[in-house]
Amino acid sequence: MSHYNQIAGQNLERLAALSDGVFAVGMTLLLLDLKAPAAEAIAGEAALWHALLDLAPRLLVYLLSFITLGIFWVGQQTQLNQMDRSDRHFTWLNLAFLFAVTLTPFSTGLMAEFITFRAALAVYWLNILLLGLLLLATWRYAVGANLLKPDIPRGTLPAVEYRILIAQSLYAFGALLSVILNTYWSIGFIVLVQLNYAIAPRYPRV
Amino acid sequence: MSHYNQIAGQNLERLAALSDGVFAVGMTLLLLDLKAPAAEAIAGEAALWHALLDLAPRLLVYLLSFITLGIFWVGQQTQLNQMDRSDRHFTWLNLAFLFAVTLTPFSTGLMAEFITFRAALAVYWLNILLLGLLLLATWRYAVGANLLKPDIPRGTLPAVEYRILIAQSLYAFGALLSVILNTYWSIGFIVLVQLNYAIAPRYPRV
Amino acid sequence: MSHYNQIAGQNLERLAALSDGVFAVGMTLLLLDLKAPAAEAIAGEAALWHALLDLAPRLLVYLLSFITLGIFWVGQQTQLNQMDRSDRHFTWLNLAFLFAVTLTPFSTGLMAEFITFRAALAVYWLNILLLGLLLLATWRYAVGANLLKPDIPRGTLPAVEYRILIAQSLYAFGALLSVILNTYWSIGFIVLVQLNYAIAPRYPRV
Amino acid sequence: MSHYNQIAGQNLERLAALSDGVFAVGMTLLLLDLKAPAAEAIAGEAALWHALLDLAPRLLVYLLSFITLGIFWVGQQTQLNQMDRSDRHFTWLNLAFLFAVTLTPFSTGLMAEFITFRAALAVYWLNILLLGLLLLATWRYAVGANLLKPDIPRGTLPAVEYRILIAQSLYAFGALLSVILNTYWSIGFIVLVQLNYAIAPRYPRV
Repeated sequence: MSHYNQIAGQNLERLAALSDGVFAVGMTLLLLDLKAPAAEAIAGEAALWHALLDLAPRLLVYLLSFITLGIFWVGQQTQLNQMDRSDRHFTWLNLAFLFAVTLTPFSTGLMAEFITFRAALAVYWLNILLLGLLLLATWRYAVGANLLKPDIPRGTLPAVEYRILIAQSLYAFGALLSVILNTYWSIGFIVLVQLNYAIAPRYPRV
Repeated sequence: MSHYNQIAGQNLERLAALSDGVFAVGMTLLLLDLKAPAAEAIAGEAALWHALLDLAPRLLVYLLSFITLGIFWVGQQTQLNQMDRSDRHFTWLNLAFLFAVTLTPFSTGLMAEFITFRAALAVYWLNILLLGLLLLATWRYAVGANLLKPDIPRGTLPAVEYRILIAQSLYAFGALLSVILNTYWSIGFIVLVQLNYAIAPRYPRV
Repeated sequence: MSHYNQIAGQNLERLAALSDGVFAVGMTLLLLDLKAPAAEAIAGEAALWHALLDLAPRLLVYLLSFITLGIFWVGQQTQLNQMDRSDRHFTWLNLAFLFAVTLTPFSTGLMAEFITFRAALAVYWLNILLLGLLLLATWRYAVGANLLKPDIPRGTLPAVEYRILIAQSLYAFGALLSVILNTYWSIGFIVLVQLNYAIAPRYPRV
Repeated sequence: MSHYNQIAGQNLERLAALSDGVFAVGMTLLLLDLKAPAAEAIAGEAALWHALLDLAPRLLVYLLSFITLGIFWVGQQTQLNQMDRSDRHFTWLNLAFLFAVTLTPFSTGLMAEFITFRAALAVYWLNILLLGLLLLATWRYAVGANLLKPDIPRGTLPAVEYRILIAQSLYAFGALLSVILNTYWSIGFIVLVQLNYAIAPRYPRV
């Protein structure tokens, strides 16, 4: 069995492919609950426009979650790019991270349904916290177990950790706003943090 | 953090793999609402044939959306093939494009449910417009940020832009037909445009 | 636009990746309707065993469809392995083939729901026929457009065609049995044909 | 046809890609039934917290199944890494294994719904048994048909078999506990076995 553990979970390409699959399915399932209104409830054009406008807050929550998954997909990709090899512990830490990814459609649906409830926001924040902690654990394990490419520049190691810690502090502050003020302030703040990470300081002139 | 942004989102293969995953799930989810009729409502063979014929317009809308996703998948693949490298802005513009892809099952379901409503057709057209604008933005950014392979032939740059602009003009005209005439004219015109792009002038003798 | 068509759809790896994604989602979605019975309807262990046994015919239909998708996945993979390069027509013929793949969960669900109805079996058979015709069209186009690797052995070209034509003749005969006898004979015959293709003459001693 | 069988199912990369896709979709679909409670049933924050706590046992079952799929994904990956080439029998044994993977969301949902029923636990165990038997059959076939890389160390062959047999013995004992005691003992024991395989003796200090 010790021999098995030595040969298990060596393949970085397969780990990347499974991750891309889980993220792709997760990103698409987010919107699975975004359904057309029932035909019986819609009398005419005006009623349909009205029903579509009512879906706008849900769409915003889905966009928020899509950006969340995008941020963590970029984060995991950036880490895997620095890896020279994998081992079974590294693989399982990544699988734990992917489990947190599969939780996202649930916590997103919960927040879309209960947008004014602190409990829903707390669950959503715990999901983001779990994603961050597991990404950090994966990175620290990779550094400790010497899995990184030999030519990684010195600045990369602290940069990756610093990035996760700053982001998680901002998310925690955002979650706290729901206790001090209300959930809309929380969501607004988290949206701003996410957009900042997605767009990054100097936005290209498109 | 500036260091993190330099190393983030470099991997074109992972971007391609995530895109293929999102398109594959999106293409399959389009038809998820195409369900067998309830067994209780079907008395015999004739009733089942009748119920299946009633599904024909829905199937046509799904086919239309499948072709739409196919066109944009070919379009994004063609762009990525010209890329030499990626950066984080390029990655995020592609993620925004993929978000528009995940909206397609919703806008398709809406049009399948409300085929005579201009509001449904407008949402569908906005979805196509968003896909086109984001593909154009991605391309312009890639050109401006010097991400393309050095040996791209001169004609490629304007050819990609021209292609998107012509296609979007035709889609916009198709959407306009729903205001002037009705949604059937719109759908018919868009189907013809799509088939033209899918089949292309000289169809092989199969 | 002529220039665009020259550079579009060149990437065989992306086509393979999209195909694997569509097949993977399709294979998994087949069983999405296989749900645990409602808890309220189950009084005790015996009732649950009974409810599970009632699911057995559905499970058989899903297995049949999984084997169908497996056969066509192996078939498409075998073709793509012979390709030297792709072009946009080849890509679009493959997209049409993938559309037929996304229809499979629907035609499977229909047959699972209406197992004694000839209409359901006819739709299922039309789906298999469409898969076969598109695979044949893709192959003939690839041969005609000179997309195959230069070193393909002479016997491969007729072998691929012959394989598809023999299989489709057997499926057509199976579908005919539902008219002459009933759908159970059809399904039984098609299952035997499928198992023959999946297992192949000389089965290894596992 | 003999010629076709010689060229079919040769591509290990495509087999890996399809497997990653099926596992990714399966892992994400596990949680598809984990839905936010209906808004009408929730009066306030306390009621929502209560409803969320009620979901905890379901979440545990999903986690258990995610680990199951993770173990078998690592197992299949480890096997494929030892392969030098594939043939059509090897491909079809892997497809049978993937069919067992697509059964997992059903058997998981069944156990989540009927957590105290031995019938549900028996079905879940049969699913794990099927996964194990097919993985063993695949490996034995690969060894017998000489598909492994020439430089595999001597210890690998028995290590892979031994691993599967020990694990399956433990799962069978766990399933037996539901007959002797009750299903909670079974689930608890299987969870411990799974965690042992996922975490492995020497856990890194993260």
